[in-house]
Amino acid sequence: MLGATFMGVKLGILGLGTVGTGTVKLLQDKNGRHPLLQDIEIYRVGVRSLDKPRDVQLPEGVITTDLEGIVNDPEIDIVVELMGGLEPARTLILKAIANGKHIVTANKAAISRFGAEIFTAANQAGVYVMLEASVGGGIPVIQPLKQSLSVNQISAVTGIVNGTTNYILTRMQTEGSDFADVLADAQKLGYAEADPTADVDGWDAGDKIAILASLGFGGRINREQVYCEGIRQVSKTDIAYASKLGFVIKLLAIAQNVKNGHRDNSLLSVRVHPTLVPQTHPLASINGVYNAILVEGEPIGQVMFFGPGAGEGATASAVSADILNLVANLKTNHAHLNPTLACRHQHYSEIAPISELVTRFYTRFLTEDHPGVIGQLGTCFGKHGVSLESVVQTGFHGQLAEIVVVTHDVREGDFRQALAEIAAMPAINSIPSIFRVL
Amino acid sequence: MLGATFMGVKLGILGLGTVGTGTVKLLQDKNGRHPLLQDIEIYRVGVRSLDKPRDVQLPEGVITTDLEGIVNDPEIDIVVELMGGLEPARTLILKAIANGKHIVTANKAAISRFGAEIFTAANQAGVYVMLEASVGGGIPVIQPLKQSLSVNQISAVTGIVNGTTNYILTRMQTEGSDFADVLADAQKLGYAEADPTADVDGWDAGDKIAILASLGFGGRINREQVYCEGIRQVSKTDIAYASKLGFVIKLLAIAQNVKNGHRDNSLLSVRVHPTLVPQTHPLASINGVYNAILVEGEPIGQVMFFGPGAGEGATASAVSADILNLVANLKTNHAHLNPTLACRHQHYSEIAPISELVTRFYTRFLTEDHPGVIGQLGTCFGKHGVSLESVVQTGFHGQLAEIVVVTHDVREGDFRQALAEIAAMPAINSIPSIFRVL
Repeated sequence: MLGATFMGVKLGILGLGTVGTGTVKLLQDKNGRHPLLQDIEIYRVGVRSLDKPRDVQLPEGVITTDLEGIVNDPEIDIVVELMGGLEPARTLILKAIANGKHIVTANKAAISRFGAEIFTAANQAGVYVMLEASVGGGIPVIQPLKQSLSVNQISAVTGIVNGTTNYILTRMQTEGSDFADVLADAQKLGYAEADPTADVDGWDAGDKIAILASLGFGGRINREQVYCEGIRQVSKTDIAYASKLGFVIKLLAIAQNVKNGHRDNSLLSVRVHPTLVPQTHPLASINGVYNAILVEGEPIGQVMFFGPGAGEGATASAVSADILNLVANLKTNHAHLNPTLACRHQHYSEIAPISELVTRFYTRFLTEDHPGVIGQLGTCFGKHGVSLESVVQTGFHGQLAEIVVVTHDVREGDFRQALAEIAAMPAINSIPSIFRVL
Repeated sequence: MLGATFMGVKLGILGLGTVGTGTVKLLQDKNGRHPLLQDIEIYRVGVRSLDKPRDVQLPEGVITTDLEGIVNDPEIDIVVELMGGLEPARTLILKAIANGKHIVTANKAAISRFGAEIFTAANQAGVYVMLEASVGGGIPVIQPLKQSLSVNQISAVTGIVNGTTNYILTRMQTEGSDFADVLADAQKLGYAEADPTADVDGWDAGDKIAILASLGFGGRINREQVYCEGIRQVSKTDIAYASKLGFVIKLLAIAQNVKNGHRDNSLLSVRVHPTLVPQTHPLASINGVYNAILVEGEPIGQVMFFGPGAGEGATASAVSADILNLVANLKTNHAHLNPTLACRHQHYSEIAPISELVTRFYTRFLTEDHPGVIGQLGTCFGKHGVSLESVVQTGFHGQLAEIVVVTHDVREGDFRQALAEIAAMPAINSIPSIFRVL
């Protein structure tokens, strides 16, 4: 590929679902877009079934069910993997790389789990793996992290990166509704999948923050070490209390340098959980299906990227931008990979266990209604070094009193020990909600 | 430069003010940042006076007052122009280009006025002109417009791109203060210049939107055709009325495709003016010295970039990112300019005169207090095809009644004609405020 005279670029696209269809449409409608699109040919599109009706027109012979044939075709320069899922995506990507093809992918699941294997293979083969569409839909965030922001020492990347859960939380907030009702309605409206697990349990956001952490902090991330907690336990009661305290509840994906120092051998906290976000924080006003990624670093301070986190057009924009970037680099006929586009990390980042996190907590208790309970709570927290920012007896819940506590910064392990002790107290009925506070 | 074996890159920096100092500091502190920074050498720094105390340490002989010597030095690969102002910046940039040097600049004034001349020279010489720092401080927006978003048909670029005016308007809003008082205080605090004209009259924002329009819409912009209206006429009275109507007042810089069609031969509206922005709009919550740029296009929808619009560190981040990008491209030893980095526009965009703008208007009238006035206003507006969304008699102002009108979309020329007629009515005392509504 490298070094040859530039003759235009042939794509082999794997997958013609929502994103694949959007990408084909965008690449076919070249007028009024970047002139470099003229150099791109959709040479093959691999699908599972030829019989399915398609929303795009392609010349005879372009659509094929022979996916292996695409990754082995010597005519093809770039394989655009838009199938999603772990296999056969991983195997096809690796074969394409072994055959010297560049990769464009929107597959956060495969990249977050097999990134190390895929990038190592790509570096050996001298090809690029581009993944702008894997996080934040159409929002340009991968390329800015690789290029524009890479002169910074990044201290944190914090994102609302899952549109489904942000849509559900936004509706719970504005309508005062329960999680289960909004989820059911979101499924009816197509904003949530029939099996919503990957979204509502935070796994999708976990994939994405693993990728962002890798780019922001310059090390590979072991996906299994990313702590993921979803939004099933968020209730309208907590949203209302949070609101009174000046917060909104958001599912945040956070990657944070927890060792004050330089990037190499950094100790990271990488996690997904519902979070109380101060109403004045830039992420607090990101509503509905929108995504936003806030990057903090030195010397830049805070920058935030906001936009549609999913959808045919937005994701197609990101996929096509990656293709364009590759075409521009191939056209310059370079003999080496461009180091701001290539995958540069060889080592794994060390990830701190969640018990080592230092954060504030919001906790709601249901207790017997007798006057000594708050004192007992305070004593037990004090014993474990948990200092309280506010304690509010918020009301009654049947026969039970409801107490909401917000702590100062505390090591999570210490806090959980205190909670275990408190949960065993006779006066404590239950602890329905525990959320971290930004 | 192109085609030679890569030996690291030598910089000649022109200017060691705030941005120059920040850039030198950042480039010297390579640890924990992109490894490519190791390939960069600060070879010369040109200053006006050697006697001024400096906040950075540089080896003997690096600092010089011989700016001509820098742009003519065959050792230097990249000239980083951080002097600002029109001359000698323009002449030095052109000489450096003629000598085959790549340019990185933060100079929005020179680029917005002399961009055509500079880019033509750069394309002839086969060098890059990089300008991320010229708009939005540290926010990556130039490079995303050139690369990630360039597969889109852009319909509008709308920005809060001047930190000083946004700081003033935010304080007027939150404190209910008058323009003159906040300006005086901002000057004391260093948020506004002693001569605040370039900021408060919208010229700085005009330079920036000219640059953004050029990148977003793929044509050169004649800076003199950019309509600029500043914030001097914004009063606390209008901010309060706007708030009641559901708006905040922001100084927006807007570039908009006003011909529904493709990018070539597009007709643009490019303008800067105080604007009533709906409180729910993403730009409404951008406060203080922060900047944000909202890009709308097909198929992406809306994406917004948010961050610090000025300051030593943020701007140094953008300048250094451009340098890094160049080094990455030079290192790949390419024989042609990368078309997603190079300047690609040859033609000028056609700019529509402000009288052709179709927009809503907010207008405040002071009138004699008699019952027929609203009817007279309505009749005159109707005659000119101006339809009204709301008319509110808001109160009294001494002996005079105060009437606030919001129109539906109207051609600005027609609206101004109606206003001229209304201003001549005996019942009309004055028209203190006229603002466009987003």
